[in-house]
Amino acid sequence: MEFSEHIKTANVEDVVLQQPLHPPSRGTLCITGHHLLFSHREEQDSSGQVLLLLRNIDAIEKRPFPVWTVWRTCTPSSTDHVMPSSATSGASPTLRSITLKWRSWYYRNCRGLPNWNHDVTGWSHGDAGFVLPRMQSGFGHSVQHERWRLSTVNRDYSVCVSYPTAVIVPKEISDDTLKKVAKFRQGGRFPVLCYYHRKNGMVIMRSGQPLTGANRKRCKEDERLLQAVIEDSDKGYIIDMRSAQQAQQARMTGGGFESKSCYNSWRRLHRHMERGKTLQESLIKLVEACADKSHNMGRWLSKLENSKWLSHVQTALSTAGLLVECLERDGHSVLIHDSDGIDSTLLVSTLAQLIMDPSCRTLEGFLGLLEREFVQAGHPFQQRCAHSAFSHARLQQESPVFLLMLDCVWQIWRQFPLALGFSEALLLRLATEAYASNYGTFLSNSDMERHAAQVKDKTQCLFRALLKPREREQYTNQLYEHTELAIWPSVHPQSLQLWRGFFLRWTQQTRHLEEVQQEIRNMVIESGKTALSF
Amino acid sequence: MEFSEHIKTANVEDVVLQQPLHPPSRGTLCITGHHLLFSHREEQDSSGQVLLLLRNIDAIEKRPFPVWTVWRTCTPSSTDHVMPSSATSGASPTLRSITLKWRSWYYRNCRGLPNWNHDVTGWSHGDAGFVLPRMQSGFGHSVQHERWRLSTVNRDYSVCVSYPTAVIVPKEISDDTLKKVAKFRQGGRFPVLCYYHRKNGMVIMRSGQPLTGANRKRCKEDERLLQAVIEDSDKGYIIDMRSAQQAQQARMTGGGFESKSCYNSWRRLHRHMERGKTLQESLIKLVEACADKSHNMGRWLSKLENSKWLSHVQTALSTAGLLVECLERDGHSVLIHDSDGIDSTLLVSTLAQLIMDPSCRTLEGFLGLLEREFVQAGHPFQQRCAHSAFSHARLQQESPVFLLMLDCVWQIWRQFPLALGFSEALLLRLATEAYASNYGTFLSNSDMERHAAQVKDKTQCLFRALLKPREREQYTNQLYEHTELAIWPSVHPQSLQLWRGFFLRWTQQTRHLEEVQQEIRNMVIESGKTALSF
Repeated sequence: MEFSEHIKTANVEDVVLQQPLHPPSRGTLCITGHHLLFSHREEQDSSGQVLLLLRNIDAIEKRPFPVWTVWRTCTPSSTDHVMPSSATSGASPTLRSITLKWRSWYYRNCRGLPNWNHDVTGWSHGDAGFVLPRMQSGFGHSVQHERWRLSTVNRDYSVCVSYPTAVIVPKEISDDTLKKVAKFRQGGRFPVLCYYHRKNGMVIMRSGQPLTGANRKRCKEDERLLQAVIEDSDKGYIIDMRSAQQAQQARMTGGGFESKSCYNSWRRLHRHMERGKTLQESLIKLVEACADKSHNMGRWLSKLENSKWLSHVQTALSTAGLLVECLERDGHSVLIHDSDGIDSTLLVSTLAQLIMDPSCRTLEGFLGLLEREFVQAGHPFQQRCAHSAFSHARLQQESPVFLLMLDCVWQIWRQFPLALGFSEALLLRLATEAYASNYGTFLSNSDMERHAAQVKDKTQCLFRALLKPREREQYTNQLYEHTELAIWPSVHPQSLQLWRGFFLRWTQQTRHLEEVQQEIRNMVIESGKTALSF
Repeated sequence: MEFSEHIKTANVEDVVLQQPLHPPSRGTLCITGHHLLFSHREEQDSSGQVLLLLRNIDAIEKRPFPVWTVWRTCTPSSTDHVMPSSATSGASPTLRSITLKWRSWYYRNCRGLPNWNHDVTGWSHGDAGFVLPRMQSGFGHSVQHERWRLSTVNRDYSVCVSYPTAVIVPKEISDDTLKKVAKFRQGGRFPVLCYYHRKNGMVIMRSGQPLTGANRKRCKEDERLLQAVIEDSDKGYIIDMRSAQQAQQARMTGGGFESKSCYNSWRRLHRHMERGKTLQESLIKLVEACADKSHNMGRWLSKLENSKWLSHVQTALSTAGLLVECLERDGHSVLIHDSDGIDSTLLVSTLAQLIMDPSCRTLEGFLGLLEREFVQAGHPFQQRCAHSAFSHARLQQESPVFLLMLDCVWQIWRQFPLALGFSEALLLRLATEAYASNYGTFLSNSDMERHAAQVKDKTQCLFRALLKPREREQYTNQLYEHTELAIWPSVHPQSLQLWRGFFLRWTQQTRHLEEVQQEIRNMVIESGKTALSF
């Protein structure tokens, strides 16, 4: 039975909508199979509409007196929409059918685009040209290099379900070898190149954990692949984002780590980073602390500490710092992985590239970085961002890894206000879009799933949309000054702070800071600096 | 025996100086009876000199290995000057002679001003014209008003040692009555007008506590004075910045509060605010937390909470908010006092005026406010700011009330980035000057002491110096937009934060924020906005 068949009353008149930072307003509420629509009584055009995708509703609360329904939407510490409960008795929080229907609906109804092709939807960049720019810039545009090659061994997703169709690997390693290595690595994630440092030719590789298991299985092909990464006389570093103890324990369930004896050109470092449930619980605690109405200062600071969110920010940044130290300062190639290589691995590799490489710090460069290191690299957005902090559902796969990455980028932006070409507004937009989006970019869990669901045909690309002139202007850091240097963030506890712009965004104060940004933007435009810088 | 006679070696060559955010530098160290001078070897002009007033040194530490001496100077979380200990064995932290000698020395040697007059030193504003602008603007320039008058009953400081020579009181209250009231109020601080709200004619009065004592003494003159403040049918509010219990206990030591029966037109509210030692200890804990080198995020947040500094900020702002509510929103006059009326009373009255009155929010207006409500109103700067957070001395009278006020103003500035005409740099400068200054403004404890010490003849005025074009440009908020409205700060714990610009000022990060300010300043100047706004 379709959800739409459960709807008893599709239209309710004279409904009051309350949203943070807006006065209450009266209008009509309409529920469809995929959306909740609220039309303000006064305004007739579409700007007077609130359009809420049902699957973006985290929780519905019925408050006994007065009779209101609170719709808690997906973004943490977000818009709560309060409405009289009589209007919406048909809806329940279980309606999470993962389909593309609503997105098609969105473009048909809201954008008026009867036919779209790749150019309109903006997906044309989704090939190696946009996905692999860091390698290109190192290799020249032909993607030719004496030591590295583009492999399409995964062209039908049969070797690794979470990898894209094209990856970069050492030139001397054949596709057949790769297939064998894939069987030895968690999720088939054989080591691939994700960053080539032009200054010294060193690289960042990433993978899943090796499946050594309890009886210390070896894989000659895996060992050869890693040996091919480094020059004969050189050493490499493996940064394992689990504690040494966790890595040991992983052997009991078929996982494991690279032992010294088998990989003697590589030195292993363990840096424990929280993932999964722990991170999600940390977010829930933080959002709960931010929503606390108590006036007790001690209570707030103690809850903030208790959530441990800032400790996770600190660990992520310092692990990225360690990677940069190994690669940029000490001149060694690095392989990073945790167990499955789709969460903290991507987080740390993204941050390290941002710290080291000035071309990742422009608006376009940063979006390209996210496309490569999160979207194409197989971060399972659908699972990780299905529910956010308000959900009453039993959370299984949810984890705010992407949000943590954005928070870390914000900390860097705060510490180096001139070094990044994009603004806080971009990070806020991305944080929102990851949880509730009208675009297809964060849909599905991998390139394979997106391909199967025809995401590129049925939806538009967020990153392309953000690069259009009007949006670009909004998300550009007007104070940006290019620097070739690495930007080393301080990870002292005193140097890190709560990302108020996001976690406390529904406060008047944040509005005032937005005014300031606008004011600066206006000034820059007035002074004609725009023309000089961009 | 003069301190200078203790000096065994006045000049030491080849000394290494280390300062935060500067590379170490070699030079010559010279000690005089009042200053420590360090001349860099390379630079011959005076910009290559570090001039350290001996009385601004909070503590001297001798570190065994390597043999260094650490000079901890007066400003919290401040410049530590590290030097080899052999150079300075004659100095000890006991050298706190409170004289004007050094200031005279400063102007003779560093400014090259052989003769100065009032215009040069900038003290000419120190009369009623600058001290009483809020009343003037309400009354017209003649300081004539139907209900208020300027009294010079304290012209020789015989009625109240901590008041200036001229104060504003109800017109119908004679100087003789004032003398009697002064005997009934702690420290002779009879109720005086400190703010006249033009919108509704209501006022803020401030005073010391009434000396009712254990046997509930009354003072008819005091009751008459307060009755004269309000219209016959009206009500007034007394905000007592002690808890009800503390106010009761004060009676045992001769103090007390305004009882309901004797002052039946006034309603008393108690809002406990910490003062004195508790506040100083809070500052010491906070500075210690900020200097903590541990990488533990939890430890930092827990120390921050433990210091309770942000709770004091919250209390101060919310008490000021209460005052504004009574006066601006509910339309009642307010009398505020704690016990002696020279600490939290001045803090709250300053903040309330900043919140309510747009003319206090310009650079000139804010400095005038500080001149009236702190300097002239008798905040004992000499005692309160003698030592700061690093001192090993037994602290008696020290209390960072002025610093707390600046912190609160910073919180307002952060919440309303367009509403104040001055910048964070001004607050930082004032915080530094209060503890270690080459100007006479924060010298001595009262107008009387400054008069006796001929401060106006022997020193220069800080506030005037800050208003000179070059300095003014530096301390102006380039984004300022005048607003007539009251700016109500949020006092939710989530809305308040550590004043990093001050407490963590010696970090690289703060330098970057200064770069941003400079960038914005440049942009404004380029865009010609300066000419439009000021």
